[in-house]
Amino acid sequence: MRHLISIRDLDADDITRILDTAEEFTTPAGEPARKYPTLRTRTVCNLFLEDSTRTRISFDIAAKRLSADVINFSAKGSSVSKGESFKDTALTLDAMGIDAVVIRSASAGAPLLLSHYLDVPVLNAGDGWHQHPTQALLDLFTIRQHFGRLDDLHVAIVGDVLHSRVARSVIEGVTAMGARVTLVAPDTLLPPSLAPWDVEITTDLDALLPELDVVYLLRVQRERMSSGFFPSSREYARFWGMNVERLARMKDRAVVLHPGPMNRGVEITADVADSDAALVTDQVANGVAVRMACLYLLLGSGEPQQEAA
Amino acid sequence: MRHLISIRDLDADDITRILDTAEEFTTPAGEPARKYPTLRTRTVCNLFLEDSTRTRISFDIAAKRLSADVINFSAKGSSVSKGESFKDTALTLDAMGIDAVVIRSASAGAPLLLSHYLDVPVLNAGDGWHQHPTQALLDLFTIRQHFGRLDDLHVAIVGDVLHSRVARSVIEGVTAMGARVTLVAPDTLLPPSLAPWDVEITTDLDALLPELDVVYLLRVQRERMSSGFFPSSREYARFWGMNVERLARMKDRAVVLHPGPMNRGVEITADVADSDAALVTDQVANGVAVRMACLYLLLGSGEPQQEAA
Amino acid sequence: MRHLISIRDLDADDITRILDTAEEFTTPAGEPARKYPTLRTRTVCNLFLEDSTRTRISFDIAAKRLSADVINFSAKGSSVSKGESFKDTALTLDAMGIDAVVIRSASAGAPLLLSHYLDVPVLNAGDGWHQHPTQALLDLFTIRQHFGRLDDLHVAIVGDVLHSRVARSVIEGVTAMGARVTLVAPDTLLPPSLAPWDVEITTDLDALLPELDVVYLLRVQRERMSSGFFPSSREYARFWGMNVERLARMKDRAVVLHPGPMNRGVEITADVADSDAALVTDQVANGVAVRMACLYLLLGSGEPQQEAA
Repeated sequence: MRHLISIRDLDADDITRILDTAEEFTTPAGEPARKYPTLRTRTVCNLFLEDSTRTRISFDIAAKRLSADVINFSAKGSSVSKGESFKDTALTLDAMGIDAVVIRSASAGAPLLLSHYLDVPVLNAGDGWHQHPTQALLDLFTIRQHFGRLDDLHVAIVGDVLHSRVARSVIEGVTAMGARVTLVAPDTLLPPSLAPWDVEITTDLDALLPELDVVYLLRVQRERMSSGFFPSSREYARFWGMNVERLARMKDRAVVLHPGPMNRGVEITADVADSDAALVTDQVANGVAVRMACLYLLLGSGEPQQEAA
Repeated sequence: MRHLISIRDLDADDITRILDTAEEFTTPAGEPARKYPTLRTRTVCNLFLEDSTRTRISFDIAAKRLSADVINFSAKGSSVSKGESFKDTALTLDAMGIDAVVIRSASAGAPLLLSHYLDVPVLNAGDGWHQHPTQALLDLFTIRQHFGRLDDLHVAIVGDVLHSRVARSVIEGVTAMGARVTLVAPDTLLPPSLAPWDVEITTDLDALLPELDVVYLLRVQRERMSSGFFPSSREYARFWGMNVERLARMKDRAVVLHPGPMNRGVEITADVADSDAALVTDQVANGVAVRMACLYLLLGSGEPQQEAA
Repeated sequence: MRHLISIRDLDADDITRILDTAEEFTTPAGEPARKYPTLRTRTVCNLFLEDSTRTRISFDIAAKRLSADVINFSAKGSSVSKGESFKDTALTLDAMGIDAVVIRSASAGAPLLLSHYLDVPVLNAGDGWHQHPTQALLDLFTIRQHFGRLDDLHVAIVGDVLHSRVARSVIEGVTAMGARVTLVAPDTLLPPSLAPWDVEITTDLDALLPELDVVYLLRVQRERMSSGFFPSSREYARFWGMNVERLARMKDRAVVLHPGPMNRGVEITADVADSDAALVTDQVANGVAVRMACLYLLLGSGEPQQEAA
């Protein structure tokens, strides 16, 4: 593994290796997070050509917890907006001696393109509607943490699959690990072809609920509502939203995931969001551990060792 | 002390303990600032939902001088503006393993609300018209540094008390420490009720000058001038501004404080601002030491120890 | 040397000392960049009152590679835009215990002014049309690295000399080191007087090519095209742009420099930009080493020593 561009580049063994490594970086409940000296002479650049505070902060914390220096490079006011070619931006970062680049971009394919120009690892932090591999990895980690396994589970992905890089990445990650995936969405929000994916589809969330181990709720992009893809928030909540009635009809151990930020009252009611069944804060916590694992595997060497406090 | 939300939460002993701790973190004249390893495995998040470069930098330096990692999170482009609930922002920071949150917000009460959601210390860096406790603490430190005590002093607070969280915090801090406070402002710039405060009021700065040990000048918000609260800059300077004539009528050891940034020529003339009586740069320097003390007392353990240079 | 404001403040010995120091900070090909503990108790402030991601990142990396803490202070939302006097901004940074200030400003003279208010070193990272001394130093370093010397070379500087602080700094640096400089530009893009400089001028790039060791291409500011200073991009490329035909007519060891970001297809064709003759990425890499040298010489003491990895 030289880069982390797409979850499709990883087979089940690669994914297991990342999740196992992330496990070493999790923080036991009640303890403060640990800091590791592993990357203390290395520099990680967060190249965020699209705003994303949550993901940027998660990578920022992950890198710093490994003692790396972090350079934050956002698009605004940068050479990218002065018309510098993307290639020259890449060559500039390379020349400056950056040891890894975390890139977020509204353009699908930008991380792959960047990896062609750079000698150092590129980590995709979300590109257009394409991929968001660390999101899928943290979701897999969270599901495995809860169930102790990933195979032989039934996962429903609910909502706007068409416009979602999260959906794309999670579908591919979950199926790669042997779980069963059903997409729950109106026809207008499914991709024209499901061809490469081994998934089922339905529009009837309620019928499916008793069989599910995991309900994965996609975020509603409110700006899409006005463009006719969506009904109103209230309609959305009625057909696709998780609420306590729906939760009660699921298995005892069933859980609800959401990549955040949640629209409380739309995809999920507040009481479900705050219930034990919702693993949303676990996902956030595991996001840091998974990103530490990715940086560690791409950049580090030797065993991770905790820094004396 | 689990959080630092309001100066009202502190009694005289708490304040004295913070000021005594800050004293250990001051830099002797002519020496470079010291760095301490105290918080070197900890992460502090600066959650600035309102712009404030000076306060953000002061907290940034304070945390780094204690060897903490700092995550800067500004509102622009963040989930907060995508409509994420404030609660979910708090839970996200908590899940990521942040060890303390410094919050600045235009909404009075945001830091208190945040402290309900977080297990880690919250430090209020200014919320609406409500409170700015570290400002009051650095002012108290500066006054104590100059006079060697805080009781038995007479402090005038001059200007727009009504709209000022600084005034609110300074009044409560100074009176808690036993000093006498007189507010000097036109009626339109005083709160409708002074009830909870043990303060006097006057509109006549000149009559008061000979009795004062400290003149605390509030910043004029120029945007309020146009809305009828204020006369012109020139009128303001004539009635409420510090100038050399007024300074000459004060006691020999009397001093002038201002929270910055100063409007030279409005609240204060350039010659007073640059005189020895103005402690404005002491306030700034002490701000770093006081914020180090707050972070240290909320997060640290054991004695502060200087890192070998 | 107490500050680095203008390349004119340096004589040939000063420049040689900086370049020799930078040499120690370069990264051998194929090795990861090294980190030095030299400035690990010091704080460097990047005061960027004008956007410049590339230069800001280069200084950021340079400071962190010397283990300094870095405070990034951009103009937006800062006290500078709230009307604080520049003097008070300076006094504030000084009071906070910043150990050095790197300043970028659209106003020529701002770094010099800042140096009058501060006791700590000021490094000019570009001020208006005036100076950009670290750019000139990294260019000199790159030329010396290639030719093994700086005297007895012939350097052409091509393009908009009139509006370019880079041109100003490079001209003065190159001539100080004993090289010959010819400016290649239309009359409209030359300063009204060349008086202080020992340079030649021509409008005929093609006639000059066979004599040159270095062609230094200035960046075309596209916004100036519309204001009548420039012909179209295509015309510019025809008269002043580097292409393979022109490169073929130069000496075997001749090289092309550009301060970046390049407008491929205007100042330089893509094939020249990607050829071995173009030292653009060397310039970027050397920029970090040169800035480390400047910070080290202004702030450090003792010999630079590499941190154990």
